[in-house]
Amino acid sequence: DLSKIEDSKPYLDSPSKTWINVCGLHDIEKLKEIWQYFELHPLIQEDILNTNQRSKIEEYPDHMFFVLRMMSFSEDTGVLNVEQVSIVLSSNSVLSFQEDDFPIYEPVLHRLRSGAPRLRNHGPDYLAYALIDTIVDHYFKVLEKLGDEIEDLENEILQESDEDIPQKIHALRRKLIFFRRSVWPMRDSLNSLLREESPLIDEENKVFFRDVYDHLVQIIDGVENYRDMALGMLDMHMSQVSNKMNEVMKVLTIIATIFIPLTFIAGIYGMNFEYMPELSVPWAYPAVWGIMIVAAVVMLFYFRKKKWL
Amino acid sequence: DLSKIEDSKPYLDSPSKTWINVCGLHDIEKLKEIWQYFELHPLIQEDILNTNQRSKIEEYPDHMFFVLRMMSFSEDTGVLNVEQVSIVLSSNSVLSFQEDDFPIYEPVLHRLRSGAPRLRNHGPDYLAYALIDTIVDHYFKVLEKLGDEIEDLENEILQESDEDIPQKIHALRRKLIFFRRSVWPMRDSLNSLLREESPLIDEENKVFFRDVYDHLVQIIDGVENYRDMALGMLDMHMSQVSNKMNEVMKVLTIIATIFIPLTFIAGIYGMNFEYMPELSVPWAYPAVWGIMIVAAVVMLFYFRKKKWL
Amino acid sequence: DLSKIEDSKPYLDSPSKTWINVCGLHDIEKLKEIWQYFELHPLIQEDILNTNQRSKIEEYPDHMFFVLRMMSFSEDTGVLNVEQVSIVLSSNSVLSFQEDDFPIYEPVLHRLRSGAPRLRNHGPDYLAYALIDTIVDHYFKVLEKLGDEIEDLENEILQESDEDIPQKIHALRRKLIFFRRSVWPMRDSLNSLLREESPLIDEENKVFFRDVYDHLVQIIDGVENYRDMALGMLDMHMSQVSNKMNEVMKVLTIIATIFIPLTFIAGIYGMNFEYMPELSVPWAYPAVWGIMIVAAVVMLFYFRKKKWL
Amino acid sequence: DLSKIEDSKPYLDSPSKTWINVCGLHDIEKLKEIWQYFELHPLIQEDILNTNQRSKIEEYPDHMFFVLRMMSFSEDTGVLNVEQVSIVLSSNSVLSFQEDDFPIYEPVLHRLRSGAPRLRNHGPDYLAYALIDTIVDHYFKVLEKLGDEIEDLENEILQESDEDIPQKIHALRRKLIFFRRSVWPMRDSLNSLLREESPLIDEENKVFFRDVYDHLVQIIDGVENYRDMALGMLDMHMSQVSNKMNEVMKVLTIIATIFIPLTFIAGIYGMNFEYMPELSVPWAYPAVWGIMIVAAVVMLFYFRKKKWL
Amino acid sequence: DLSKIEDSKPYLDSPSKTWINVCGLHDIEKLKEIWQYFELHPLIQEDILNTNQRSKIEEYPDHMFFVLRMMSFSEDTGVLNVEQVSIVLSSNSVLSFQEDDFPIYEPVLHRLRSGAPRLRNHGPDYLAYALIDTIVDHYFKVLEKLGDEIEDLENEILQESDEDIPQKIHALRRKLIFFRRSVWPMRDSLNSLLREESPLIDEENKVFFRDVYDHLVQIIDGVENYRDMALGMLDMHMSQVSNKMNEVMKVLTIIATIFIPLTFIAGIYGMNFEYMPELSVPWAYPAVWGIMIVAAVVMLFYFRKKKWL
Repeated sequence: DLSKIEDSKPYLDSPSKTWINVCGLHDIEKLKEIWQYFELHPLIQEDILNTNQRSKIEEYPDHMFFVLRMMSFSEDTGVLNVEQVSIVLSSNSVLSFQEDDFPIYEPVLHRLRSGAPRLRNHGPDYLAYALIDTIVDHYFKVLEKLGDEIEDLENEILQESDEDIPQKIHALRRKLIFFRRSVWPMRDSLNSLLREESPLIDEENKVFFRDVYDHLVQIIDGVENYRDMALGMLDMHMSQVSNKMNEVMKVLTIIATIFIPLTFIAGIYGMNFEYMPELSVPWAYPAVWGIMIVAAVVMLFYFRKKKWL
Repeated sequence: DLSKIEDSKPYLDSPSKTWINVCGLHDIEKLKEIWQYFELHPLIQEDILNTNQRSKIEEYPDHMFFVLRMMSFSEDTGVLNVEQVSIVLSSNSVLSFQEDDFPIYEPVLHRLRSGAPRLRNHGPDYLAYALIDTIVDHYFKVLEKLGDEIEDLENEILQESDEDIPQKIHALRRKLIFFRRSVWPMRDSLNSLLREESPLIDEENKVFFRDVYDHLVQIIDGVENYRDMALGMLDMHMSQVSNKMNEVMKVLTIIATIFIPLTFIAGIYGMNFEYMPELSVPWAYPAVWGIMIVAAVVMLFYFRKKKWL
Repeated sequence: DLSKIEDSKPYLDSPSKTWINVCGLHDIEKLKEIWQYFELHPLIQEDILNTNQRSKIEEYPDHMFFVLRMMSFSEDTGVLNVEQVSIVLSSNSVLSFQEDDFPIYEPVLHRLRSGAPRLRNHGPDYLAYALIDTIVDHYFKVLEKLGDEIEDLENEILQESDEDIPQKIHALRRKLIFFRRSVWPMRDSLNSLLREESPLIDEENKVFFRDVYDHLVQIIDGVENYRDMALGMLDMHMSQVSNKMNEVMKVLTIIATIFIPLTFIAGIYGMNFEYMPELSVPWAYPAVWGIMIVAAVVMLFYFRKKKWL
Repeated sequence: DLSKIEDSKPYLDSPSKTWINVCGLHDIEKLKEIWQYFELHPLIQEDILNTNQRSKIEEYPDHMFFVLRMMSFSEDTGVLNVEQVSIVLSSNSVLSFQEDDFPIYEPVLHRLRSGAPRLRNHGPDYLAYALIDTIVDHYFKVLEKLGDEIEDLENEILQESDEDIPQKIHALRRKLIFFRRSVWPMRDSLNSLLREESPLIDEENKVFFRDVYDHLVQIIDGVENYRDMALGMLDMHMSQVSNKMNEVMKVLTIIATIFIPLTFIAGIYGMNFEYMPELSVPWAYPAVWGIMIVAAVVMLFYFRKKKWL
Repeated sequence: DLSKIEDSKPYLDSPSKTWINVCGLHDIEKLKEIWQYFELHPLIQEDILNTNQRSKIEEYPDHMFFVLRMMSFSEDTGVLNVEQVSIVLSSNSVLSFQEDDFPIYEPVLHRLRSGAPRLRNHGPDYLAYALIDTIVDHYFKVLEKLGDEIEDLENEILQESDEDIPQKIHALRRKLIFFRRSVWPMRDSLNSLLREESPLIDEENKVFFRDVYDHLVQIIDGVENYRDMALGMLDMHMSQVSNKMNEVMKVLTIIATIFIPLTFIAGIYGMNFEYMPELSVPWAYPAVWGIMIVAAVVMLFYFRKKKWL
């Protein structure tokens, strides 16, 4: 009673529950055939095709319609991919639509093939739960990856390798904003699903949806956490930049403050006036050296007192 | 049963639904005539004329009154235009008022002319929905434009072309504040419309208003998103400015720190004391050069250790 | 049936509605007389005299008690004046109390004198509405003034005239905080007034109070807007200061970096060693000039590459 | 029927209301005696002794239990003192407990002694109100002191006396956080007290508790206000520091930029080459002076154009 | 009727309440045995093993399931340890699961051994309360430690020892985020527990859970407080860094501004022109000294006027 291609319509006549997963939304003709067979509301049809929706759960007279956002990190590029997934739950079937053929539901298929009793014995609402739960599990993987990125960035900041730290933090914040924006609305709609009664969702199975809800809350918590940390990292980086500039300034100031006055003294006795009595004094030259050394030492003490050294 | 000029009053006597769109609010006489014909509440009349209102939906005994803010980007100047649009829904007619004759409702007119069955068969509430939906569709275009502006600004920042970045970010933030301020109240009023019962809006058609509500939530989400990103861009710009200043400081410090002591040494032997034994030593001049080169090299090593080079 | 001095008590015996406006709260004796005549609750009496209250609306068995904060800009000094106004609505009269004799209600008086039908035909609740509406209209004027100040400040910032910009922004923010603080509580209390039933306010007239509520929401919106903009202006100013400092630093660095090494070279040949072979070479002087010019040009190219020029 | 020492127990047998104020919580034996007499719930007993509680109002079967935080500024040190005050209201008595013997309730005692009719004629709930109101009045005094401190700090900032401004702002913010934290929970619990029915609080006296609630809201408003202002002051101080640094940089840059090139020119003609044709030209010296003056004037014009002068 | 090892199952057959504490979650076999004996829901079983849950309270038909996060500071390293603790309350037993054998419940065991009457006479809900209360007491200790860390950091900042202050503040903020994240969800779930009716929790014992709730609110308050303070400390540190940089700049500017012009004058008279009339004037040398001293004094006065000295 399960198949991944859409030519499995005969099963529909059987009274048992059916799951049809449609990969790719380009073949409008086939989609329309399915929609007509299942008598989907026009707004559902529009929402399935319009692949830039917020996550939501909507009740229609005969269907419950879930729009979800599947998220995954592409291993190579580290880019956050997103794909709209629609699930239509009716009293005896589950329709799922996705943009491409990424094997989202692999774990569910695996459990079905291995004959998981819970999946087989419960109604289509449990199947819908299993699909949604799989998607939410993908969120956890994304969250973990984001956590790794934060850890990496924090280490980079601590090692003070300032290669584009602000850009990296900015990119991370964008990802977090994007991720949160995808997950947040799902929490709200699941929450109202839990509070309302629906003939399509068995009261006994609600505990499973509550579990999904808990996972979502945990994920959102984590994202908020990460956003706070990203902000903290920016503060830390900015204050490192300030500290470095401070240090640079101190070196400049110490060198300049010591040598500029000494150079002035040397300049004095470099003047060519005819009547400069000091010039002919035999001990004048060592005396000038003495004055210079004393001045430098006094400066150094002053800097030490100021804790610049 | 539709016309764009206001001399189409005969249709009103027919029992079918009527849509009258009034462009321009200067001809008070004609407006008053229409108002009296439709028996609009004095506060509605005031609100139509006072074109600086917040978006709102108000129920009056015989009418439902929508104030909306039409927004569009003027192609040439990139300025965000706003115009107040009022829609009065009664049991058998829809009145719409706009400030100038921008063809806001073109898509609805088009569908009506091409005989869209849904528009023709549903009641005036569906027509009102279609009008509002058209306005909300314009919001999406504005949002897209704002997204393009953000993308452009981000690229400018990454290329470190610091031509008035803060002013540009400020201008963008003002636009976002303004846009959000125009859209936000509409969400609230639509939300309460959805929760309350009204004889003027068919329970079956509420699903369409819910759709508009979803769109609005999506738009507000996007705006919040963009505001966060604008703030992030400012942080990024500020930290770029700090970094540049840091780099400038380093160059100054390196040059000054190397040459100021060397110049001091040269100054010493430029003094004109009669008794300076070093001056007559034959190898003194190359020795001074040696000391200077060693000092410079030590400095350079120090800077390399400090990672300033 | 209206008078501005308090010796107009005979009217009170007539069944028609009465409006008494008391200017100045110093003559406690007269106030007490009025309070006793109208049997005001002791807490109302306290609140009228204690002129530093938050705006609020309180229901007492026979009265509805409004505390409002009248705000106005003094034309000369640009200072934001505030004055507490109390309005007591009973079933057949409206009492209003104000601290001084600023002609707040001029527009209402004008309409009454010119025989406005709505004001004369509706009950005292409509009169109370008219008074409150007049005060809220004053808020709009204040808001407009604040908007002008923001516009001025923004222009000053754009023209980079840094005369005490932070202080001015700070003063503006204080005004906005103060204004919002005065208006905000009124919104809340009006909101609960609208939701509750009261024998003193006719259900039909509630639509007018809803209108006042809408105005308040619009004003608070505007204030929030302005606060956001004030914050944005501070960011803009701070980043201008950073930019200027950056520019100053660049000029210093360019000059110092070019001339300090050249001065060093000049210093070298200013030394008085007896054995400096270069000194007697005829082409040494032009050669040194050549070296100096090459060094300066190299530096300038470097700065151009760094985009400091 | 009032006494400040706890040996006044005979009064308790009389049916009239009784107020016992216990100062100091060290004499556990006596406390236990009182608690047993009044049959206080064990959790009440714990809460009275544990003097680091949040403000709260709790209903127990026979008692209403108030935990409040008395705040006062010590005149000498400017330190904000806090002390936990517990009030137990039963149907015919009020028990109040405080940590030390600060005369908190002096105003109530004074009114009781001078035979205030309201205090004597109303039930124990009115007495409880009077006690709480006294404590809230102390909050106003604290708020006023904090307002004075803010005013002082603002003046210090405007006069640019930078003696530890950040530390002072930080200390002020800590005080505000602490104050708000003490007052905030009381508002919430009073709010729920107002909404719920309790046999211990007469419906007619609720208007007095609503008055206390209004005062608390006003105080919290004020604190929020002050926190915003404290943040604004920090911004102002930081931007003053930036401005000063900018000014220091400008002076350094002007001096260095004018004199470094001139010193270079002087250095050139201080070189000891044998073949320097300029040296023997009679008008060379005044010519060099001329060049130097022209260079300096050009620089000064440049700085004026840049608005650095 | 209490034991800490899990071989104490015979007690379960007795009708009295039983507490079983399981330390360590690795021995799945034994866990499964217990779960089967107590007929725990599969989701409870999953949640016990999955030790990275948010705190929550869930009602199942026959059980109430608490997930808590035990927190403690390891004395040596100052690291914040966290451990998931699960408590399953049924009508006649309490099961508690923890990851390792940290003696969390020592105080409860102590009271049980010493025969505390309340613990022995109340039902298993009171025992569950006692366990939860013990965990919340640990939170207070953690909060205290965090308060100490803040105090230490503040002192470090005031003494201006800038050893990695930003990193330390960042680490502290991470701890606070982490702590709050662990405690926050528990407050929400306790709150809903208090509002709902459950057969497993005696109405009379709810007052104890309300007490725990109060403690949690107090802890969260404290954490928010500390987060505000941590932010304030960062501001203070950043402004100290700015101040220091300002001071460094001033010293550099004063020295450079005084000596660069003087060195220029010395450079002038170090030039070797043949025709420099000043050189042969006898009083020229002292005159130059005079000019230099006057220039330096003027500069110093200027700096004093600018308040740089």
